[in-house]
Amino acid sequence: MFQTERRFLRLLFLLCILHYEAGQVFGVWPMPQQITQSTDRYLLSPQSFSFSYSKDSAAQSGCSVLDSAFKRYYSLIFPDAADGARFSNIWMDPTPFTVSVSVKSGECDGYPDEGSDESYNLSVAAGAAALKAQSVWGALRGLESFSQLVYQDKYNMYFVNKTEIQDFPRFEFRGLLLDTSRHYLPLNAILKTLDAMAYSKFNVFHWHIVDDPSFPYQSYSYPDLSSKGAFHPMTHIYTQSDVKRVISHARMRGIRVIPEFDTPGHTQSWGKGQPNLLTPCYKGDVPSGTFGPVNPILDSTYQFMSGLFKEMKSVFPDSYVHLGGDEVNFACWKSNPNVRAFMTKMGFGHDYTKLESYYIENIVNISSALNKTPIVWQDVFDYRERIPKDTVLEIWKGVPADYRTELAKITHAGYRVLLSAPWYINHISYGQDWRNSYTVQPQNFSGTDQQKALVIGGEVCMWGEYVDATNLHPRLWPRACAAAERLWSNEEMTSNVDQAFPRLEKFRCSLIRRGIQAEPLFVGYCKDEYRGV
Amino acid sequence: MFQTERRFLRLLFLLCILHYEAGQVFGVWPMPQQITQSTDRYLLSPQSFSFSYSKDSAAQSGCSVLDSAFKRYYSLIFPDAADGARFSNIWMDPTPFTVSVSVKSGECDGYPDEGSDESYNLSVAAGAAALKAQSVWGALRGLESFSQLVYQDKYNMYFVNKTEIQDFPRFEFRGLLLDTSRHYLPLNAILKTLDAMAYSKFNVFHWHIVDDPSFPYQSYSYPDLSSKGAFHPMTHIYTQSDVKRVISHARMRGIRVIPEFDTPGHTQSWGKGQPNLLTPCYKGDVPSGTFGPVNPILDSTYQFMSGLFKEMKSVFPDSYVHLGGDEVNFACWKSNPNVRAFMTKMGFGHDYTKLESYYIENIVNISSALNKTPIVWQDVFDYRERIPKDTVLEIWKGVPADYRTELAKITHAGYRVLLSAPWYINHISYGQDWRNSYTVQPQNFSGTDQQKALVIGGEVCMWGEYVDATNLHPRLWPRACAAAERLWSNEEMTSNVDQAFPRLEKFRCSLIRRGIQAEPLFVGYCKDEYRGV
Repeated sequence: MFQTERRFLRLLFLLCILHYEAGQVFGVWPMPQQITQSTDRYLLSPQSFSFSYSKDSAAQSGCSVLDSAFKRYYSLIFPDAADGARFSNIWMDPTPFTVSVSVKSGECDGYPDEGSDESYNLSVAAGAAALKAQSVWGALRGLESFSQLVYQDKYNMYFVNKTEIQDFPRFEFRGLLLDTSRHYLPLNAILKTLDAMAYSKFNVFHWHIVDDPSFPYQSYSYPDLSSKGAFHPMTHIYTQSDVKRVISHARMRGIRVIPEFDTPGHTQSWGKGQPNLLTPCYKGDVPSGTFGPVNPILDSTYQFMSGLFKEMKSVFPDSYVHLGGDEVNFACWKSNPNVRAFMTKMGFGHDYTKLESYYIENIVNISSALNKTPIVWQDVFDYRERIPKDTVLEIWKGVPADYRTELAKITHAGYRVLLSAPWYINHISYGQDWRNSYTVQPQNFSGTDQQKALVIGGEVCMWGEYVDATNLHPRLWPRACAAAERLWSNEEMTSNVDQAFPRLEKFRCSLIRRGIQAEPLFVGYCKDEYRGV
Repeated sequence: MFQTERRFLRLLFLLCILHYEAGQVFGVWPMPQQITQSTDRYLLSPQSFSFSYSKDSAAQSGCSVLDSAFKRYYSLIFPDAADGARFSNIWMDPTPFTVSVSVKSGECDGYPDEGSDESYNLSVAAGAAALKAQSVWGALRGLESFSQLVYQDKYNMYFVNKTEIQDFPRFEFRGLLLDTSRHYLPLNAILKTLDAMAYSKFNVFHWHIVDDPSFPYQSYSYPDLSSKGAFHPMTHIYTQSDVKRVISHARMRGIRVIPEFDTPGHTQSWGKGQPNLLTPCYKGDVPSGTFGPVNPILDSTYQFMSGLFKEMKSVFPDSYVHLGGDEVNFACWKSNPNVRAFMTKMGFGHDYTKLESYYIENIVNISSALNKTPIVWQDVFDYRERIPKDTVLEIWKGVPADYRTELAKITHAGYRVLLSAPWYINHISYGQDWRNSYTVQPQNFSGTDQQKALVIGGEVCMWGEYVDATNLHPRLWPRACAAAERLWSNEEMTSNVDQAFPRLEKFRCSLIRRGIQAEPLFVGYCKDEYRGV
């Protein structure tokens, strides 16, 4: 009798809810390749919700990446689990719901890298969801999508709709650059950025770790680089343990960490801790006391770079390394009589691009000998350095039009490219400038299908001239999400920026709920506002 | 013997410090009217530092504004007092230092208002500083300046240099507008803004509290306005106690709180909780279901507005109130047959500016009857409403040039003006856009000296279309500081934006140290970075 009445009340209650809320089907950001959703929905109770490894999964309990992802996503899915649990205790029997995860490869302790398979299939039905992926990295993407499918109604009850997703990334390289030289970013700011990257399915953290203004990387081979070249030798550095923490935090989220040690330009801070590395500039016949790019004519330069890159190899597990190579100013080299003598000796004439080529070739060879695939800025291609065919060129010049020409040229020469030019989101303007990022078409240039296939992805760049921990997060989020969807999703399915708007608004509120200081897209509010004030 | 040795060591230590650090004389932001500094400096010990009331001061212990300011500024001056005290214990006898404050008027429980005297004189000498002001509000400004004079050397010892300051504001009205309707700003975000305003010597918080998107003010006379017009009736409102807290927090910092209840436009949210307030728009002969500006033809409108403004008078102590009056769209009025009939009856013909004038006159009269001085947006002058001569017009249109013409016109007509047009700092652009705010010349328009004197100040406006708690602070600070200096300081002394730059950089680091999320001006670092990540 009591049991019957209780079931009746529960049914009545559910009918009321459905009356008000049915059809509340929200999207996922970035948009999956295929998604089918129904208005049928299932009540989730935090008490009786679980993740489990499917029996046929190659990875089982003990798999570091998935064990911690299960824990993390439980909290993300049920941010106020305690309240929800109490509420559902009073009103109804908890209905069990299990997300069963199955991966084909049992590799759990490696790092995501070039060629990692991020595809997944997700099927949400009554009482259970099945998530199948080739690798743990694909499973992570599927968990993120699942977490975005869950929503709360006005009684704060959790629901998920019947859903089928087949998903995979359009581009294998979806990066975000942070610049920790122009301003120092505290470790927590980087870790939080990695969190938000995972929510948007970014998979590469391009760490522009050093540059002219400061050298915060604490090298164990050359400790003077940071002790003399950082803004402060103790408070404004990344220790080896900090770097390990970043790489580990990124790994758990399926994110590669690619460091950039940009040379021969952008190296003023290096000179403070490494004497004789930079070229002494001359005024007439005497050194002026200032220094230019790395000195490309000394053997000691290459010995040092070789030592530094050997350390890099031991510290950063990714198979890629970014070598920079942008914006080299020749004036100082030209002023230096020893450099001029070297030019003559080498038969370079007055063509300093040949000297730069010579330098870059040496550096590329050093990194290749260490089995690292080099990424360099487009300047290296523009100067026609002889570089290995596996080198990746990153396009950063020319907005809004010119990058298309460069895409055509570089892919025509057979090199792989990364597109960054339209995604320099440190550049801000008033209003909804995410719309410009969203409408970029990375493969819209004249070239063959083979050429288009050489576009391996792109990067959002947050250069640090005007950015530090005070404004990093609201400048990044949700503005970077536009490029995240462009790099992950099918272009035809996501060609309408106005249709994307409400989905991005909802995703932005999720970011806020998850503690990311994501700025508003326009007038309005989130049910749960940012609480970090 | 021991005592002598200790003195000798102390002298030696001080000499060492002086050798490295002497001459470290920093500026104050905004720049005082007169400041003379010497390289003579005095060591401050947190243990033996105190504020006191001078014997000749009309205010003495128990004065709420100054008692709490003393406590507040002690922490601002010695943010790491505990460490400093321990350090100085070991090395030397603490040298007492007292800041003696003397005010001529003993009024401590009132509110800052029009005509409050903010001038002060500050004299810093060995062992003592003398701060003299007419009112407690001037004493607050002097305490802020004193706090900015104190600095730490590389051993974290605190110093202040011998200094003489005679200071007063150039303009009596130095405002900052926050918009809490387009996005809700939590109470803490407002309180923190008030803190930072005091650091920059702003003295008016213009609270654009309601507008089209939401009505967060919880009125005790008309509770439906927020319960139906706020984004959320419980979480996105300002209760009476919230408003009291804002006014009290502002008072303690010498800041006036002027609310804006903008009508007849910008009132969509009002209509939800106040039936028959807005004009029903028509499509042909039938109401379209949408609503336009406040309905100016009904007696009930003026009864309601009268009731609301009576409540305002009891809630907001300032003698000014902002009545809005901007951007009225006539289309809805024109569509409504009853409004058209009223136009004919009143002999307004087809000139709807006359109807707007009629409305505004009535509202201005309501506020005048309550002894409130009205501020209105420039539109009210542009439409030539008949308004009392004490009305203040706020100029918001026309960047970069046109606001000068408007300044000339309005002051020629004998009205007082506030300048906001060049200080819409919700508008962002890449790079150092504070420079544009800094080079504004509010009295550089063609007019007599009497006209120039009618410029009573200006306001920085942070409209809320793209701003909420996630990005408010880094957008406001230090960008708003540029206008703060323009409104306080002598224009000739502060005409060079490049000279201002290092002083603003230093001030920005102080803001960070004080917990304000102020974004960087350019490449570099602060000794103490933002810790709120």
